[in-house]
Amino acid sequence: MIIVLKPGATKEAADEILAQIEQRGLKPLYMPGVERIVLGALGDERKLSDLNFNAYPMVDEVKPILTSYKLVSRDFQSHDSLVKVGNVEIGGSTFIAMAGPCSVETEQQIELVAEAVAKAGGKILRGGAFKPRTSPYAFQGLGLKGLELLAKAGKNNGLPVITEVIDSHDVGLVAEYADALQIGARNMQNYQLLKAVGQAQRPVLLKRGPSATLEELLLAAEYILSEGNQQVMLCERGIRTYENAYRNTLDLNAVAYLKLKTHLPVIVDPSHGTGVHDLVAPLTLAAAAVGADGVIVEVHPEPKNALSDAQQQLRPEEFARLTQKLQQVLTAVGREF
Amino acid sequence: MIIVLKPGATKEAADEILAQIEQRGLKPLYMPGVERIVLGALGDERKLSDLNFNAYPMVDEVKPILTSYKLVSRDFQSHDSLVKVGNVEIGGSTFIAMAGPCSVETEQQIELVAEAVAKAGGKILRGGAFKPRTSPYAFQGLGLKGLELLAKAGKNNGLPVITEVIDSHDVGLVAEYADALQIGARNMQNYQLLKAVGQAQRPVLLKRGPSATLEELLLAAEYILSEGNQQVMLCERGIRTYENAYRNTLDLNAVAYLKLKTHLPVIVDPSHGTGVHDLVAPLTLAAAAVGADGVIVEVHPEPKNALSDAQQQLRPEEFARLTQKLQQVLTAVGREF
Amino acid sequence: MIIVLKPGATKEAADEILAQIEQRGLKPLYMPGVERIVLGALGDERKLSDLNFNAYPMVDEVKPILTSYKLVSRDFQSHDSLVKVGNVEIGGSTFIAMAGPCSVETEQQIELVAEAVAKAGGKILRGGAFKPRTSPYAFQGLGLKGLELLAKAGKNNGLPVITEVIDSHDVGLVAEYADALQIGARNMQNYQLLKAVGQAQRPVLLKRGPSATLEELLLAAEYILSEGNQQVMLCERGIRTYENAYRNTLDLNAVAYLKLKTHLPVIVDPSHGTGVHDLVAPLTLAAAAVGADGVIVEVHPEPKNALSDAQQQLRPEEFARLTQKLQQVLTAVGREF
Amino acid sequence: MIIVLKPGATKEAADEILAQIEQRGLKPLYMPGVERIVLGALGDERKLSDLNFNAYPMVDEVKPILTSYKLVSRDFQSHDSLVKVGNVEIGGSTFIAMAGPCSVETEQQIELVAEAVAKAGGKILRGGAFKPRTSPYAFQGLGLKGLELLAKAGKNNGLPVITEVIDSHDVGLVAEYADALQIGARNMQNYQLLKAVGQAQRPVLLKRGPSATLEELLLAAEYILSEGNQQVMLCERGIRTYENAYRNTLDLNAVAYLKLKTHLPVIVDPSHGTGVHDLVAPLTLAAAAVGADGVIVEVHPEPKNALSDAQQQLRPEEFARLTQKLQQVLTAVGREF
Repeated sequence: MIIVLKPGATKEAADEILAQIEQRGLKPLYMPGVERIVLGALGDERKLSDLNFNAYPMVDEVKPILTSYKLVSRDFQSHDSLVKVGNVEIGGSTFIAMAGPCSVETEQQIELVAEAVAKAGGKILRGGAFKPRTSPYAFQGLGLKGLELLAKAGKNNGLPVITEVIDSHDVGLVAEYADALQIGARNMQNYQLLKAVGQAQRPVLLKRGPSATLEELLLAAEYILSEGNQQVMLCERGIRTYENAYRNTLDLNAVAYLKLKTHLPVIVDPSHGTGVHDLVAPLTLAAAAVGADGVIVEVHPEPKNALSDAQQQLRPEEFARLTQKLQQVLTAVGREF
Repeated sequence: MIIVLKPGATKEAADEILAQIEQRGLKPLYMPGVERIVLGALGDERKLSDLNFNAYPMVDEVKPILTSYKLVSRDFQSHDSLVKVGNVEIGGSTFIAMAGPCSVETEQQIELVAEAVAKAGGKILRGGAFKPRTSPYAFQGLGLKGLELLAKAGKNNGLPVITEVIDSHDVGLVAEYADALQIGARNMQNYQLLKAVGQAQRPVLLKRGPSATLEELLLAAEYILSEGNQQVMLCERGIRTYENAYRNTLDLNAVAYLKLKTHLPVIVDPSHGTGVHDLVAPLTLAAAAVGADGVIVEVHPEPKNALSDAQQQLRPEEFARLTQKLQQVLTAVGREF
Repeated sequence: MIIVLKPGATKEAADEILAQIEQRGLKPLYMPGVERIVLGALGDERKLSDLNFNAYPMVDEVKPILTSYKLVSRDFQSHDSLVKVGNVEIGGSTFIAMAGPCSVETEQQIELVAEAVAKAGGKILRGGAFKPRTSPYAFQGLGLKGLELLAKAGKNNGLPVITEVIDSHDVGLVAEYADALQIGARNMQNYQLLKAVGQAQRPVLLKRGPSATLEELLLAAEYILSEGNQQVMLCERGIRTYENAYRNTLDLNAVAYLKLKTHLPVIVDPSHGTGVHDLVAPLTLAAAAVGADGVIVEVHPEPKNALSDAQQQLRPEEFARLTQKLQQVLTAVGREF
Repeated sequence: MIIVLKPGATKEAADEILAQIEQRGLKPLYMPGVERIVLGALGDERKLSDLNFNAYPMVDEVKPILTSYKLVSRDFQSHDSLVKVGNVEIGGSTFIAMAGPCSVETEQQIELVAEAVAKAGGKILRGGAFKPRTSPYAFQGLGLKGLELLAKAGKNNGLPVITEVIDSHDVGLVAEYADALQIGARNMQNYQLLKAVGQAQRPVLLKRGPSATLEELLLAAEYILSEGNQQVMLCERGIRTYENAYRNTLDLNAVAYLKLKTHLPVIVDPSHGTGVHDLVAPLTLAAAAVGADGVIVEVHPEPKNALSDAQQQLRPEEFARLTQKLQQVLTAVGREF
């Protein structure tokens, strides 16, 4: 940790801080510069996290050297983690397509989609049963009934299933039906929920919040791992920027960056990531090229009758055409599908 | 609602949409322009919200005319709402200062702050018992013990108290101790929680999410009102922008804008809003000048020993100096303190 | 154009606006809704652009129907434009790699890079002679000498050259040496410069400003086309967001979106777009997969001795490895290299 | 400067960097930590700016200690700078209101506004003659004729005048007519222009770019000062954020922050800063309360007939009412008007 003092800071102000650093067992450094006094702390600076050096009147800035996350870091574990959803392995040489409707609506709808997903090479079925909605007047999901239909459709078509959980008290219930739990973007910093899924026996897909930095995403994942659940996938799903030509700005830089910094698999959601039907296919191909470990795509038999996110869902035949192209791009970058 | 079709859209595509509009009891309009066909729907367009016109292949854009929120709108209720926390009225001619530590830490700490707040003209005591923290390794609050200490300190100093609730299942418990419930920025779209406080018998301070639009903030408030709780205050607490000279960018435009669009009181949080100690006082004065109904400020007897958000808390004597200046600005803009 | 009036607006206020619409030769529409009066104008609404309906006291909102740009729109010209830089055609079935150092520094440097670019399949040589720099104390480019060295290196290696022009008065000079003119991101709305290159006889690569919307980028291109120069390429080079793990956030959604909305070729700059060496290669592959017509990549023989943007330049051998992978991805998406 | 090496970096990699630091006359520091090796450079680290440590393969991160700007810094000059426009002093105890139309349109218009501005207590007349416009089809200003009318109206009403210059080659011409030169937001990083006004004998109002950080703004001011012109005012005029309820988000945090970091006067533009008529007055009062040294406000006799930015201009009587309230807020914060 580096601590820059304000101009005019005294030796006494510096000594007070240096003493605290030493007391915590780190090596203190005193570096008087031309314009500023700079202090340093060598050692595991996470031990200093409850000392509020930035609240000292003579301190101008505190610059950490180490990352604030640890268990999820590639420095901590250099090889890629594999996550297993049902019998599907994510994070290895095979790229995984998860697909399904935004919301489970009827038995016929989810069965129809599940069949189409399986046929097109999708490996995991997604579908929402509990839906967090911006407006109190919008469809909120089928709840338990939705879980049952999803699980059944998955089983009938040989696909493990993933669905969102939005309340820490529902984790047990959802885990009974789902092979993987999804934490939605709006809940990325719902720490009650992160702890609950951290104690569950199910892999977790953790979505990046719409204005979360990658450091915050990694810290949210750290919450889950620190509770004992190592089976975490990160998911880039579009961030909020000033640009409003699309609902979100899918950030593919994040994928390449995360693959450098963490050993966890990285999934891309081009449906929410753009929020625009015509952008889903090209961004899916780009996700494969940039090095993602999989995608999660919304597919609906009749998007214009969908009860949520109609404008971004692909029809089954569109999804099938997309997976064909996807396969070619994956071959080009040396991955299987 | 205005629906712009793509170039080349046929009369048939238009007719299908017009029929749906008519079927819902709105008046359909057909407006063939030079370059595009434009359709319109006159009437309560919220009845069309489950028709996904933006998922129709021939539709280019859907432009709503009415706001998506209703109960919170000044169109719906033109006079200012008054919210009552204990015996303190918010939203009228008196500007209210709420103050207290980020976290309740010890009995001595909260009593000391409560006394200082009351003496300096503060009307409501704040303090966190359940703390949502970015890092799993940070202090998470005293929980129930914190609630008890807060309530006691409030009572001893004649101040109603406000504290954050972070889990829908805790609302009842927190409401036993607190005069008002705070929904934190990260939970602005935690709909389980919004519903729960919507059914509680306590006023609610709803903080704007760090990347929430004002429309989303108003829709989140609508959730609470639509459950039957009219006692809602909105709180601007800084948004996330590209600028990182400060932790957040306090958005005072939001205050002036919200006062035009909604009848609910608007509070400003300059402590989280900037995240920088030296910016708290000037931004508090600016909040008073721009037309806010109150502020919520963090005060701690010894910021450098604080267990959370040390860098943004004022010492009691700084808060006292601030309220003196605040009073003068309020007089200048015709408000009491 | 749709004009939404405020609640309580009178028929007289509406009539005044309708009369103005009619006077300009458009068809006025009066649509009294349940909560609001809405007005419409059918016809070429660009004729209304100098009527400031949004400054009328009774007007709440003005919603244009048509795009504000015209010549660059795919509605105006549905087939792809081809741009010719020297003998290289951009916007057709062949994907073009432009490459070279951020700044031209010495004859040896630029010759070395030019040779490497040509050998690796690059088709156009880039290099800065006039450099806009954030700090007044940074290297500002070799100027005229740089132009000469660039042109010579291009000729020696059979590569047309592109370089940035930063002053409207330099356009003639730069056009003597360069086969294509580049407008840098910071100058995207330097209208003097846009007009000057609009009158030049050279193709233009127009970079998106770091906080420019795509509509603003298209309007900036419209400036150039409206002066008579049709040879314009758009370039996505990263936008400014809240995320600071990378210098810029390369926005590949923009590529897919622009290909829908305009007939102009779209180029991606992954070097500035990320500002991080290790992200350049994966984002180049993603650019190819998402449908870009080319990339512009920084290559330097010894990045750590570069006089500008050292951290994002590839070494020649890294660029060669990249173009090999690029070729495979391009084949997968049906394009030549 | 602090240089963090990657995990696994060797002593040799460190030594190469330390040798370079020493060679430049700074004191090198070697700090081997538990997880990382950290290097330091004590002394004027600006001497290292052309060494690209961040391009060394073993370097993970470079953290500067000193600010990149110098002449504009409060560390360099602790007392407030005074800028003199005609006989009006800015940056002292008197708060200055500059006002006038977005564009000079006719003699009658500018005379009428000038009279109203003077009468309401405004001290400087603003008005655009050269207008940078987003659309090529919009009004571009009266040019030289506009300068003449502006200068005459200023003289007739005892007001010095300020106007924007958009081309480095026009600086001499504009300086003949104007008492102060304005650099518009889109030109904040037009370095040709910054150099030209740096060599002019006129004070400069430098507007923050719509996505410029405060560090970039201060560096742009440094450009001007480093050319010999000390008479620079900074101007906050709204930044681009994800929120689109207003055209820009006026950032008043910037004002308080700049007053801490620089000795230059800070002006606020609430007209462009919000882009919304009804927000101009409250944000002007907030600017006074937060500690700005002045405001620049758009006033037009008949906004709905304005040739540019109609929706944000105040009518003369609105401006007069605003200055009355402004005076009261200024008195409250101890400033004159």
